[in-house]
Amino acid sequence: MRNSPARPGLSERVLSGDRRALARVLTYIENDDPIGEAALERLFPHTGHAHLIGITGPPGGGKSTLVNELIRAWREQDAKVAVIAIDPSSPLTGGATLGDRIRMQEWHADPGVFIRSMASRRFGGGLARNVLALAHAFDAAGFDPVVIETVGTGQDEIAIASLAMTTLLVQVPGTGDGVQTLKAGSLEVGDILVVTKGDRPEAGELTRDLRNLRHVGMAAGVDQSGWQAPVVKTSAVRQEGIGQLIDAIGKHRAWLDESGELDMRNRQIITTDITTRVQDALARQLQGPDSGDATLRALVDAVAARRLTPHRAAADVLARLNRR
Amino acid sequence: MRNSPARPGLSERVLSGDRRALARVLTYIENDDPIGEAALERLFPHTGHAHLIGITGPPGGGKSTLVNELIRAWREQDAKVAVIAIDPSSPLTGGATLGDRIRMQEWHADPGVFIRSMASRRFGGGLARNVLALAHAFDAAGFDPVVIETVGTGQDEIAIASLAMTTLLVQVPGTGDGVQTLKAGSLEVGDILVVTKGDRPEAGELTRDLRNLRHVGMAAGVDQSGWQAPVVKTSAVRQEGIGQLIDAIGKHRAWLDESGELDMRNRQIITTDITTRVQDALARQLQGPDSGDATLRALVDAVAARRLTPHRAAADVLARLNRR
Repeated sequence: MRNSPARPGLSERVLSGDRRALARVLTYIENDDPIGEAALERLFPHTGHAHLIGITGPPGGGKSTLVNELIRAWREQDAKVAVIAIDPSSPLTGGATLGDRIRMQEWHADPGVFIRSMASRRFGGGLARNVLALAHAFDAAGFDPVVIETVGTGQDEIAIASLAMTTLLVQVPGTGDGVQTLKAGSLEVGDILVVTKGDRPEAGELTRDLRNLRHVGMAAGVDQSGWQAPVVKTSAVRQEGIGQLIDAIGKHRAWLDESGELDMRNRQIITTDITTRVQDALARQLQGPDSGDATLRALVDAVAARRLTPHRAAADVLARLNRR
Repeated sequence: MRNSPARPGLSERVLSGDRRALARVLTYIENDDPIGEAALERLFPHTGHAHLIGITGPPGGGKSTLVNELIRAWREQDAKVAVIAIDPSSPLTGGATLGDRIRMQEWHADPGVFIRSMASRRFGGGLARNVLALAHAFDAAGFDPVVIETVGTGQDEIAIASLAMTTLLVQVPGTGDGVQTLKAGSLEVGDILVVTKGDRPEAGELTRDLRNLRHVGMAAGVDQSGWQAPVVKTSAVRQEGIGQLIDAIGKHRAWLDESGELDMRNRQIITTDITTRVQDALARQLQGPDSGDATLRALVDAVAARRLTPHRAAADVLARLNRR
């Protein structure tokens, strides 16, 4: 086959808009197949255009419905929309949840929408790396925005905020007392706070409370970036709020550009990308029983025997790292 | 003061059971104060005795009540119990939640109980490192078990499983349909599944469903470790199930010892400890505007300009790391 007219490679086909090629690259990436990494090497120079939008909130919070409404609105503006739905469902239940499958069917015939469900895995070090790799592939294929959706309370929200340029934090009315809601929600990570199920009687009160809390936070100097997170109430039942939310997302994107904050967030996303890759590789080297690097494994042995502290082991790793 | 009779150092006082010294070390650690790291250097050789137990589940799932009942049962056996409650509450609400404060007051007079509430932070890379540092301090001070409690769905559960020897996964009856429950729960990470609020009418069905799911999972080879996770139904109202749960925890600990799995999990916890420290240090070096390491920052610049892929940047970091 040498010197025969080259069949376009996988990444070239992704760049030309071939959906099946894209799907294959995504699968290679998810399976940690070297073909995925090789394709990413070629795709990465074509990235840097997509708006990465994180959406997080409690389970049963109406996120899937909200994302569906957003897709519809973006499609009316002819945007190509990708969704990475991070799904903590058990391997026992077999991958994508029922809700995701229904949603995927709805948009299946539309080449301007690509929804990818992704299982979070045990010892999820690889998750951030994989999510960013998928986002790069979508970005190179011309999708913009790329939505990263997670069920989350606590660390999830924090994690997603370090992967996205704009983070939507979903809050649901009528799901508990105030203390619990506050405990579950890390308001700081939300660039935009979205109250879903706005037809519920408690929705107005929650919206007011969130607006007040936001003012308290601003006054206390909790958020010093200069962006004042809007609170948007939406209702799928009443078909309300999505236009406002699309506006808020656009305004945040414009603010990111004007304030220079976009550069900061991009550097942060890249730092996450590099450091999680390093961490994953380190964990493999340190833990693998057939690891090639005896030096690194010896560090774990020394710490396990209490001959070395984790602090000194990490310092040893870093000293070798910074040696020129 | 040179050559004067040495006043016992902070870590010596922790080792001798001084509760105020311990509290100070915990605060230094949480604030990333070098005094905390210095104390840990002296404390670490005295660790390796405590049973690290993770407890995770949805907000409002009755975890605080459950932990309280466990403390009571362990105190009857004269165990010294420490609890690290990871609290995703907003800085806006000011640290520990109401529930935590009530609980802390209840045990305040008992020197055999130490409850520490710890806020999860934005860009939470430091969280795992800090939780383990607190656990080391408690371990050195003679606390055993050390409970790590998080609100969590999704990544939280995965994260806690990599910090604990035994993980209790809390499931709550009557909080949603089956699909949602499964989506929210990552059953695999639970060494013991705990159904709280066992007085609710749906508790029996949930317990049965979880037992069935577990059998399906065993048959499918999802869990190949050889441990069959028990499902324990508890009720604080009826004062039921805690004895059974204490038994199940003891059995899991015995199994860890006999099967050799304890060594594996300890190596995994140490690996997490080292790699998160390296990752945190890398992130500071890569991102800090006044970072001393221009080489690392240049990598981020090159990736931001799309002259370098994240994969190659990480490979560059790792190559320098493995250079002898």
